[in-house]
Amino acid sequence: MTPPLVAILNGPNLNLLGTRQPHIYGSTTLDDVETLCGEAADEFGLALDFRQTNSEGELVTWVQECRGRAQGIIINPAGYTTTSIALLDALLAVELPVIEVHITNIHRREEFRQHSYVSKAATGVIAGLGVEGYALAIRAMAGLLAQDDE
Amino acid sequence: MTPPLVAILNGPNLNLLGTRQPHIYGSTTLDDVETLCGEAADEFGLALDFRQTNSEGELVTWVQECRGRAQGIIINPAGYTTTSIALLDALLAVELPVIEVHITNIHRREEFRQHSYVSKAATGVIAGLGVEGYALAIRAMAGLLAQDDE
Amino acid sequence: MTPPLVAILNGPNLNLLGTRQPHIYGSTTLDDVETLCGEAADEFGLALDFRQTNSEGELVTWVQECRGRAQGIIINPAGYTTTSIALLDALLAVELPVIEVHITNIHRREEFRQHSYVSKAATGVIAGLGVEGYALAIRAMAGLLAQDDE
Amino acid sequence: MTPPLVAILNGPNLNLLGTRQPHIYGSTTLDDVETLCGEAADEFGLALDFRQTNSEGELVTWVQECRGRAQGIIINPAGYTTTSIALLDALLAVELPVIEVHITNIHRREEFRQHSYVSKAATGVIAGLGVEGYALAIRAMAGLLAQDDE
Amino acid sequence: MTPPLVAILNGPNLNLLGTRQPHIYGSTTLDDVETLCGEAADEFGLALDFRQTNSEGELVTWVQECRGRAQGIIINPAGYTTTSIALLDALLAVELPVIEVHITNIHRREEFRQHSYVSKAATGVIAGLGVEGYALAIRAMAGLLAQDDE
Amino acid sequence: MTPPLVAILNGPNLNLLGTRQPHIYGSTTLDDVETLCGEAADEFGLALDFRQTNSEGELVTWVQECRGRAQGIIINPAGYTTTSIALLDALLAVELPVIEVHITNIHRREEFRQHSYVSKAATGVIAGLGVEGYALAIRAMAGLLAQDDE
Amino acid sequence: MTPPLVAILNGPNLNLLGTRQPHIYGSTTLDDVETLCGEAADEFGLALDFRQTNSEGELVTWVQECRGRAQGIIINPAGYTTTSIALLDALLAVELPVIEVHITNIHRREEFRQHSYVSKAATGVIAGLGVEGYALAIRAMAGLLAQDDE
Amino acid sequence: MTPPLVAILNGPNLNLLGTRQPHIYGSTTLDDVETLCGEAADEFGLALDFRQTNSEGELVTWVQECRGRAQGIIINPAGYTTTSIALLDALLAVELPVIEVHITNIHRREEFRQHSYVSKAATGVIAGLGVEGYALAIRAMAGLLAQDDE
Amino acid sequence: MTPPLVAILNGPNLNLLGTRQPHIYGSTTLDDVETLCGEAADEFGLALDFRQTNSEGELVTWVQECRGRAQGIIINPAGYTTTSIALLDALLAVELPVIEVHITNIHRREEFRQHSYVSKAATGVIAGLGVEGYALAIRAMAGLLAQDDE
Amino acid sequence: MTPPLVAILNGPNLNLLGTRQPHIYGSTTLDDVETLCGEAADEFGLALDFRQTNSEGELVTWVQECRGRAQGIIINPAGYTTTSIALLDALLAVELPVIEVHITNIHRREEFRQHSYVSKAATGVIAGLGVEGYALAIRAMAGLLAQDDE
Amino acid sequence: MTPPLVAILNGPNLNLLGTRQPHIYGSTTLDDVETLCGEAADEFGLALDFRQTNSEGELVTWVQECRGRAQGIIINPAGYTTTSIALLDALLAVELPVIEVHITNIHRREEFRQHSYVSKAATGVIAGLGVEGYALAIRAMAGLLAQDDE
Amino acid sequence: MTPPLVAILNGPNLNLLGTRQPHIYGSTTLDDVETLCGEAADEFGLALDFRQTNSEGELVTWVQECRGRAQGIIINPAGYTTTSIALLDALLAVELPVIEVHITNIHRREEFRQHSYVSKAATGVIAGLGVEGYALAIRAMAGLLAQDDE
Repeated sequence: MTPPLVAILNGPNLNLLGTRQPHIYGSTTLDDVETLCGEAADEFGLALDFRQTNSEGELVTWVQECRGRAQGIIINPAGYTTTSIALLDALLAVELPVIEVHITNIHRREEFRQHSYVSKAATGVIAGLGVEGYALAIRAMAGLLAQDDE
Repeated sequence: MTPPLVAILNGPNLNLLGTRQPHIYGSTTLDDVETLCGEAADEFGLALDFRQTNSEGELVTWVQECRGRAQGIIINPAGYTTTSIALLDALLAVELPVIEVHITNIHRREEFRQHSYVSKAATGVIAGLGVEGYALAIRAMAGLLAQDDE
Repeated sequence: MTPPLVAILNGPNLNLLGTRQPHIYGSTTLDDVETLCGEAADEFGLALDFRQTNSEGELVTWVQECRGRAQGIIINPAGYTTTSIALLDALLAVELPVIEVHITNIHRREEFRQHSYVSKAATGVIAGLGVEGYALAIRAMAGLLAQDDE
Repeated sequence: MTPPLVAILNGPNLNLLGTRQPHIYGSTTLDDVETLCGEAADEFGLALDFRQTNSEGELVTWVQECRGRAQGIIINPAGYTTTSIALLDALLAVELPVIEVHITNIHRREEFRQHSYVSKAATGVIAGLGVEGYALAIRAMAGLLAQDDE
Repeated sequence: MTPPLVAILNGPNLNLLGTRQPHIYGSTTLDDVETLCGEAADEFGLALDFRQTNSEGELVTWVQECRGRAQGIIINPAGYTTTSIALLDALLAVELPVIEVHITNIHRREEFRQHSYVSKAATGVIAGLGVEGYALAIRAMAGLLAQDDE
Repeated sequence: MTPPLVAILNGPNLNLLGTRQPHIYGSTTLDDVETLCGEAADEFGLALDFRQTNSEGELVTWVQECRGRAQGIIINPAGYTTTSIALLDALLAVELPVIEVHITNIHRREEFRQHSYVSKAATGVIAGLGVEGYALAIRAMAGLLAQDDE
Repeated sequence: MTPPLVAILNGPNLNLLGTRQPHIYGSTTLDDVETLCGEAADEFGLALDFRQTNSEGELVTWVQECRGRAQGIIINPAGYTTTSIALLDALLAVELPVIEVHITNIHRREEFRQHSYVSKAATGVIAGLGVEGYALAIRAMAGLLAQDDE
Repeated sequence: MTPPLVAILNGPNLNLLGTRQPHIYGSTTLDDVETLCGEAADEFGLALDFRQTNSEGELVTWVQECRGRAQGIIINPAGYTTTSIALLDALLAVELPVIEVHITNIHRREEFRQHSYVSKAATGVIAGLGVEGYALAIRAMAGLLAQDDE
Repeated sequence: MTPPLVAILNGPNLNLLGTRQPHIYGSTTLDDVETLCGEAADEFGLALDFRQTNSEGELVTWVQECRGRAQGIIINPAGYTTTSIALLDALLAVELPVIEVHITNIHRREEFRQHSYVSKAATGVIAGLGVEGYALAIRAMAGLLAQDDE
Repeated sequence: MTPPLVAILNGPNLNLLGTRQPHIYGSTTLDDVETLCGEAADEFGLALDFRQTNSEGELVTWVQECRGRAQGIIINPAGYTTTSIALLDALLAVELPVIEVHITNIHRREEFRQHSYVSKAATGVIAGLGVEGYALAIRAMAGLLAQDDE
Repeated sequence: MTPPLVAILNGPNLNLLGTRQPHIYGSTTLDDVETLCGEAADEFGLALDFRQTNSEGELVTWVQECRGRAQGIIINPAGYTTTSIALLDALLAVELPVIEVHITNIHRREEFRQHSYVSKAATGVIAGLGVEGYALAIRAMAGLLAQDDE
Repeated sequence: MTPPLVAILNGPNLNLLGTRQPHIYGSTTLDDVETLCGEAADEFGLALDFRQTNSEGELVTWVQECRGRAQGIIINPAGYTTTSIALLDALLAVELPVIEVHITNIHRREEFRQHSYVSKAATGVIAGLGVEGYALAIRAMAGLLAQDDE
């Protein structure tokens, strides 16, 4: 049986992870995150499609392409979290389980980072638990997909 | 005599039309809309350039390219309606008649969908009349262009 | 077969159309609009009941009287657009298709004109296309009524 | 030569003047105000048309009728001051000098009384000087009309 | 001895009661309400003057006419609840006990229905208890009038 | 047959009723209110459980305990009216008819007293009619329970 | 008998009157205003003390000095209108009749000019009637002082 | 070696879990959650102290008592999430890792539920993943405690 | 003669004083504060009743109990400062002189700490002067009580 | 040893103290306050420099001059409290302990008096304790200066 | 030929430059700035009039005096930036090119420093480039004056 | 020695400069700006990398690429100024000196153009000085880089 496919979509500036403002974001790189996600996916029998882009339009397109191809989406929308209605609309359109991940606890940062359009389309939100949040999201997604199977 | 060219520009997620949340957006696809627009354009002696993109930057560029090439713009800015000042600036810059179309009545949806930067550059706005709104926009554009001719 | 009846209800000060601030509203009079609407109604096989009042209470009563008598309402609520909850309630109560028309693009005018209670009860909104907006509304209403027949 | 005609239009509840909450509005009745206005008009060579209504629509209609008939409008919009865009539109449409009068200083009363749509169409505003404000308005109107004559 | 007279004044669209949106307002008609009120009035020895109007100006005038004629006012201001300062001023002017009734619990409906100018002039408010709210208001008014007698 | 049980729950500082700021709250004590409620309950064939607490947590617990034990709740949440989401959640959870009572008309007091979380869970609201509001609430509750029986 | 003394206090930039932005403020100079006020004062038997300053502190001191020396204050606070609580406090402290004059109708200008702290201490306000507003204020002050004499 | 102790503190109404509004909160009971947490704790070698209270003060006290006794706190503050500064202060005072859990995605519910004071003291937040969120929190807490050990 | 009794009531988390976030609150414990207050009370001939609680309801009850028992209240409401209307109501009810004390200057801390309901019932407020603020409050209270005696 | 110098700076209208609105500010004059402060300063071994001005600029200059000359500042900024960023900047620049005094409890007065820029630069704030607040501020300043000495 | 005169006007507290909060404003003194400006003026053939005041009124007067005397104004309004409408009015009145300079980037500081009335009258704004901003402003002013000459 | 490289990044619609709305933006084209910048760079010994894009994502990527490649960034974010958190994050991440340039004075234009996310990451801001602002920015950047060298 093919394992369910989960897309892990990363928004703008996450390609700089580990090098950018490490006192805020830590020193793990995005490659490390991909490895960590791969391990978690193996543990829960999921296949992954892990990507990053700085472009809002590309992120929207990637979300659309998940339809009929992936079983779930884990998304760290980064700088587009609080501004992208286009992203929200795409997530609403694909009708898949969505888990939103933030490396930092956005509620303790500047006021303008504390609102999320993506949350309105997300099943769940995990924030502030560092890159470990990705692994937790994979575990949670595995649970959601198992539920759907029953 | 060459018929006047009208660009019909569609924003993010409209490529999913007919399949995405049909209880909100109906079951007509974007291809159907293009056909419907073609018929209306024929009726009023207009040529069309019909496009869709998920990218804000590409939408801005397309608007710019209308300058000196098209005689009017019909735009459904979708998810960029309420957030894109870049799009507003492009529309202000081309100095063409602009008709903004929304398939749904955005004033009856979530609060954050009820504001439009595009409206500040639009001659007219048509909302809530389904894909038929495109045909009405073409009819109205024909009228505006005829007026300019006088 | 009797043609469907559409009420075209005009709010305060529209009786001054064509004479009042022509740089904003143009020089067509309300009589001209009635003629123009009559022609469009003929084209689409509709009967019209075209009225104007300065009184909010009378506008509310006219909307109520459409119930069981007209098949659709086209309304230009003018100065009552942003303040009349009584009008909103009446429109919600009659449960007919409603198209809201504004001669100017209210979104480019003063901030206090950019909100509409009527929009919350309207199927569609047409703004900024001059008196031609009435003709478009009649065409759209014809389409909506045809749909209901199927 | 016919003296210039000035309409003095009074809004809702001013018919109760002198009997309603005299600690706020004083004990002069609206008839007294009419007499006082008559005397001031005589002093400045003006004819008056003095009226009161509780109906917003009627007030709008009276304003409209001033067009081509009166040379200036003095208006105490009372309870419609802060809510009537229809009244504002009518005043803008007649293009006459308008002086807004309030018996009390609305800026010292409840917050919701401190905004005026009418002020956006008024040449001048006189507030808080009691019924004497009407006489001042007549004097000021005489001055404005004399200016126009030059 | 003449029984005390209580005016029961109903605002816009209440004439549609029982037929308009029955899932919100129930199926009792305004005639039923008048009957129900008559019974309650008999129980408490009160005479009633029961009316409905769609016109804000007429409602203001009716309130004024209660002065020196009625001993109390029960008012369901409906769509004028949140917008009419003219109505508030009239209620303040008559200086009678006022009970405001709403059939639905306005605090559970749309945000714009949750504010009431009328409440600033009301002795008491009863909301959300259906047409039975009228009977409760009559009982409460009887109590208030009895108190005044002592 | 056991009479239906109605809980009457009183929030903080209501134990001071009759002695605290009598110019606002009157001179009836909470014991008087209990007596008055008892009489009304007898009239309508209801049993009562009448309590008061200063503790938000205890009020939440009492509401919870009504589940499966009482048929309806009459609550005067006093100082917790505008701040307690915990109380709102408890009221939503028990799924019983709820009538909210305020002795004073909170809409005529300070702005911060004019919002109520409890109203979002209440069937009806009675305010400003003094302690008599409790008796009205009992009468209304009897009506609601009779309705449920049909 | 000494004529009553009225202080006419002018705030910042009014010394530029007649030369500064004449399309807004007209071409009359402050000296012309002083002459015009002198004539009006003669007509009503008042003595004047006419001054201008750019300094908020000096304006506050001048207001204080009116106490026990002048019978009334006419003030055009200009740029300090919307920001000076110190000026408001001084006006409240002297307990004299105060008339606030604005040459332009501040309610038709930028939003930030539409609020006035001075109005909270003023008996009356006259705005938008040009420099003639000073003469009206003197007439009104004469009336107020005559009233006090009775 | 003693396993690290993690306190799992549950706020108001969570004792009703599984029975209250199951369409929102699911049918798992709080006892089930305790069992589920016990299993997760065993998996990660943690000891638990699992509690629930409806009282804000008791919740504050429990948080205080964690100091010097527990190594981490997992808290579902429920109805006190958006209102309790006292709880925030207690969490700031104990200086332990804190994970905030919400069963539902509070960002998709009513506006007033979307703000959290607790988030300002939390290391991480997990919302919308049902009772499974507790297990994820335990896993995350184990990771945080392991990190501290290094 | 019995010395006047002053209640010193401390709100949530003040039991942690001296150990919690000493960079903000200093290292003096609440026991030290009690000693310091005792000395100040001796100096001014006052008896004290010094308490602390984490419970809002208990704080309300303690305030109520001051009635007829204490002559004044000094209160540090801590986390309930900005949220407790129940506490405000209790303070208003007891009609005693109230001095509100904050150890830190709340106006320099987070925005949400800068509002106080308690201030609306307080005679005076002392903030930012550390635990010395308690001693100042006792001195001020002694002055207030002496004044009342005169 | 020279006693430490404390500047006591008084803002606009405080020169009127004792004569202006005595129901708000009491009947003590500013001279009385200076005497009272002198006595308190003697008690705590401080020298005083006591001044008043109506000018914001002069107040700023006086604050600046404290640098290197005084050891602490006690300031009653009066009408400049809520508007003067220049004053705030001066207080931040001198880097001395600052105690802000208000004779009345500004939190119980009009909304626009409840914000203070000065508080952002103040060590402590004392409000609502009448002119006695000055004496308390001197005592507190003595304590602060003693602390600095240690 | 006389070189064009440029006034450089400095607002409150800038006399402390170099000594006040050097971590924010640097260690250059205002005398240094004058020297630096003199050099830049020489480079571009401009004469300077360099001043500083703590008084809003004096700043207004200096701006007025530039009229007919200077060719341009460079202003660092410091603490009056966000509050002085009087200063804005003076700058609008003189109708000269105005460049606003801020040593720090006000957009990165406290929210209340981020708004500028002066900007509404300024040709250009230079912020955050330290005292070098003055030299840049002189260079830019030279360019603007050269343009006007063409 | 290689001259330091400065990236000059231009946002959406700046490719239309000189042709778009010349009454606002002037008639200089972006090519002219590049030439002008080249000359200024030569004067100060800097190398330039001058680019324009309509795409937010591309702008973000260009900023990222400056890291380790350029010594400073001059950016005119145009339409993305007020909306792009992704751009802000990229600028924060590269940790280079950043100067934000706007051709027009954004503070005198529409309200929605007056806020800038980019300013939160910028060292300095230059606005309203036309294309000359670019030359000033280069001069300022040269100064900043020289400082860093010291």
